[in-house]
Amino acid sequence: MKRINLLLIAVATLAGAVAFATPVPRHSNQEAAPIFVKTIPPGYRDWKLISVAREEGELNDIRAILGNDEAIKAYREAKLPFPEGTIIARLAWSHDASEENNKTFGRPQSFVAGAPKNGVQFMIKDSKKYASTGGWGYGHFDDGKPTDDSMLKACFPCHQAIKDRDFVFTRYSH
Amino acid sequence: MKRINLLLIAVATLAGAVAFATPVPRHSNQEAAPIFVKTIPPGYRDWKLISVAREEGELNDIRAILGNDEAIKAYREAKLPFPEGTIIARLAWSHDASEENNKTFGRPQSFVAGAPKNGVQFMIKDSKKYASTGGWGYGHFDDGKPTDDSMLKACFPCHQAIKDRDFVFTRYSH
Repeated sequence: MKRINLLLIAVATLAGAVAFATPVPRHSNQEAAPIFVKTIPPGYRDWKLISVAREEGELNDIRAILGNDEAIKAYREAKLPFPEGTIIARLAWSHDASEENNKTFGRPQSFVAGAPKNGVQFMIKDSKKYASTGGWGYGHFDDGKPTDDSMLKACFPCHQAIKDRDFVFTRYSH
Repeated sequence: MKRINLLLIAVATLAGAVAFATPVPRHSNQEAAPIFVKTIPPGYRDWKLISVAREEGELNDIRAILGNDEAIKAYREAKLPFPEGTIIARLAWSHDASEENNKTFGRPQSFVAGAPKNGVQFMIKDSKKYASTGGWGYGHFDDGKPTDDSMLKACFPCHQAIKDRDFVFTRYSH
C-alpha cells in the first residue's frame, strides 16, 4: 500500500508539474486574454505563393496568400498541424478592370490588381504564445499600422470552423 | 589618298564583321522564323509574386504572375528594358466559388483557385536568341507539354502593343 501511495503522489506531482509548465487555455469565467500580432513579419513580400483568391461584396478585392518557408514546406508535404514558426500572409489589392488588356483581348474580360486594399493580414503559429486562439496569432495592418484588438477578436471565432485543417482556410495551389 | 582609302576599307570590313556577328531582325520577305520556349524553366513555382489577375470570358480563371530574381529586381527598381535572363511566369487556376468561405462570411462573395487551368506561360528575355520577337521568347505548356507554334505565334503581335514597357503587360503589385 505504501508503495502504491508513493507512486500515486509521484504521478500527481508529475501531472502538476506538466500542468504548470504547459499553460492550457482557460475557459468560461477565467478565459485568457487573446494575444494578437502587432508587428509586421519582415520580408513577407518575398515569400512564396500559396494561392490566390477573389472577394466580391464589400471587400471587392483580388488577393494573394504567401507563406514563409515553414508554411510552404508543410503545405507541400500536406502536414498538419503547421509547425511552430509558420507564418501565412494575406495581401489584397483593388480588383480593377484593365482597359489595356481588354483592348488586346478584344473584349471586356480582364481584371488586374490595383492599389493595395483591405490591409495586410498574418497568421503566426506559436502554440504557447497564442494558446488561447488555437495556437495562431492573428494580425491586421492598414498602411503598416496594426488594427484595433476589437477587429482581431473576430478572427479566431471564424477560423474555428476549420479546426480540422489547423484553422487555416487557404489551400495550396499547385 | 591611299591612307584614306585603306581606312575606309578597314571601317567597311569592321562594319561587315559586326553585321555578320550580330544577327539583326530581317524584315518583310525574308523574316526570321520566331523561336519559342519549349522547356519549362525549373523551380518557377518557388519564384516571388509579381501580381495577380482575373480573366472572365472563355478563359474564366484566376492567375498569378511570378518572376525569377532578375525579374523581381528589375520590377522593384522600375528598370527597363528587363535584363538578359529575366523570366516571367503566368500560372492560372479555375475561379471557383468557395462554399466554405461563403458560409463563414455569411454571404456569397468568395472565389478561390481550383484546379490548374489554361496552362502555364513564360516569357524569357534573351535578346539574341529571341531577336525576332522583341528579345522575348514565349512559351505555353499544358500538363507540362509545350503547345504548338501556331498558338505561340499569336503572343508577340499582342505584346507589341506595350513595346514601351518592354512588351510586358503585368505591373508589379506592392
